[in-house]
Amino acid sequence: MRIGVIGASRCNKKIARIAYQVGKEIAKRKAILICGGLGGVMEEAARGAKENKGLTIGILPGFSSSDANSYIDIPIVTGMDHGRNIIVVRSCDAIIAVGGREGTLSEIAFALKLRIPLIGIETWEIEGVIKADDAQAAVSHAFQALKREKKIVRCT
Amino acid sequence: MRIGVIGASRCNKKIARIAYQVGKEIAKRKAILICGGLGGVMEEAARGAKENKGLTIGILPGFSSSDANSYIDIPIVTGMDHGRNIIVVRSCDAIIAVGGREGTLSEIAFALKLRIPLIGIETWEIEGVIKADDAQAAVSHAFQALKREKKIVRCT
Amino acid sequence: MRIGVIGASRCNKKIARIAYQVGKEIAKRKAILICGGLGGVMEEAARGAKENKGLTIGILPGFSSSDANSYIDIPIVTGMDHGRNIIVVRSCDAIIAVGGREGTLSEIAFALKLRIPLIGIETWEIEGVIKADDAQAAVSHAFQALKREKKIVRCT
Amino acid sequence: MRIGVIGASRCNKKIARIAYQVGKEIAKRKAILICGGLGGVMEEAARGAKENKGLTIGILPGFSSSDANSYIDIPIVTGMDHGRNIIVVRSCDAIIAVGGREGTLSEIAFALKLRIPLIGIETWEIEGVIKADDAQAAVSHAFQALKREKKIVRCT
Repeated sequence: MRIGVIGASRCNKKIARIAYQVGKEIAKRKAILICGGLGGVMEEAARGAKENKGLTIGILPGFSSSDANSYIDIPIVTGMDHGRNIIVVRSCDAIIAVGGREGTLSEIAFALKLRIPLIGIETWEIEGVIKADDAQAAVSHAFQALKREKKIVRCT
Repeated sequence: MRIGVIGASRCNKKIARIAYQVGKEIAKRKAILICGGLGGVMEEAARGAKENKGLTIGILPGFSSSDANSYIDIPIVTGMDHGRNIIVVRSCDAIIAVGGREGTLSEIAFALKLRIPLIGIETWEIEGVIKADDAQAAVSHAFQALKREKKIVRCT
Repeated sequence: MRIGVIGASRCNKKIARIAYQVGKEIAKRKAILICGGLGGVMEEAARGAKENKGLTIGILPGFSSSDANSYIDIPIVTGMDHGRNIIVVRSCDAIIAVGGREGTLSEIAFALKLRIPLIGIETWEIEGVIKADDAQAAVSHAFQALKREKKIVRCT
Repeated sequence: MRIGVIGASRCNKKIARIAYQVGKEIAKRKAILICGGLGGVMEEAARGAKENKGLTIGILPGFSSSDANSYIDIPIVTGMDHGRNIIVVRSCDAIIAVGGREGTLSEIAFALKLRIPLIGIETWEIEGVIKADDAQAAVSHAFQALKREKKIVRCT
């Protein structure tokens, strides 16, 4: 199972702590963590996963694998800037948004469009986002959502 | 000047009428209309522009120029499904959202992220979206916004 | 009809002259010219088209419409770097390669893959490329090729 | 280290055997295998890696992780059809082409453009491709090439 963690590349300590916990819980449940590979929420979640023996994928916007934070095992280098957001979303079975600004909003929108389960902690309140109070609840929701059948939704 | 019109590929009559008016106003002001090239809001806006001697660009998600609605002069064929949303946004000097669902929300998010002026009519209420009551007000706002200096914002 | 012109962003005088002639011929036949929007062959072809009342589209790799050469009417801003090459190819009914290096080779490969007619002048000699001796012959070949039925080829 | 294996989604037995050996050698040297995730050369290389305890990434063109062949550990779902080719290339430290047709040619072109070492077995003979006679030689060349300094080349 692949769980995405999305959020801003800069964040405050509270959001950082939640992101770390989310990464940790994902690793403890033996799921793969996918994120955008940069700093802030992405880095803290990846750190949480790595320090708990998880595997981490970073789908990078830029031109070099060295853009990845130190906790990314596998950097995917898209060179497509924000064009990589849709790839982050498509590659996940469920997604957890922690905080986040406009970039995160674009990913939330894509997840809702593609009917990929999206759990949010202190993030945009959009109809369809499953709200969670903490990291454990969020990861719990994500795994429950995985049991639902997956659908493929194309752009029409 | 290139003005984008974003919205869903299916819409009700009220939204269709507004989209048509937005397209018409864009053409009357000699701006180029950019959209996602498909039906609904995209088609009505393109029709409004074409029936008023405008020029229309459709940035298509699929594999064939024949996916474009009948009012598109220049189809750009991306083959990138929703991956084309960021290209629609980047290619515009200002954008008008008319109604819209998740796909439109992803484009609104990108516009806010990239600091491209985004005017909304009966659409998502997100901080940063300039609200307009009708097509004329929206196009007016869009042209005023164009006078502001453009900034380039990269993914960080 | 949309004819693509592909080639390097830097080129010698001979190649530049051919690119200009190709652009001119495309415009004289009332076709739209599509290119990558930058310098060299792209700029000379666009100049040839513009000085003969043609319409020019530049599908740009970068983040700003100001990257386009001075002869581009409609810049499409992808922000996807070389990821835009496939979009240049897909958007054309036929393509003319003038000179060119590795970037051009990637576009030739995509055109062959997608079965879009590809005419080459002093470019890579690859099976499937229709060789032409000068600009007029190339544009002639391109228009003849357009009469063939188009096929959609997906990645398998 | 991440080594890419590129080639067609259908291939004859000889090419399949070489692809398997390449995947096996990559795994034995503890490198990660990246490929396009589909059948043919991609599947055989992934099988060779998996049967030798390697880790495999498939960067898929379509909309579903279920498009991946059975030997892919981590599917990256781009939804960008051939637009994913550039991502396969960018994500690798070195690439081995085994056989291959036009899709492979586009990837060879991108690798040469981006100055990513490209070793070829029974594939397109293009200047810059390092020719190898068998799987062992190819993987050997790839690891030697990794020692060279990496450069970032942007689209200009």
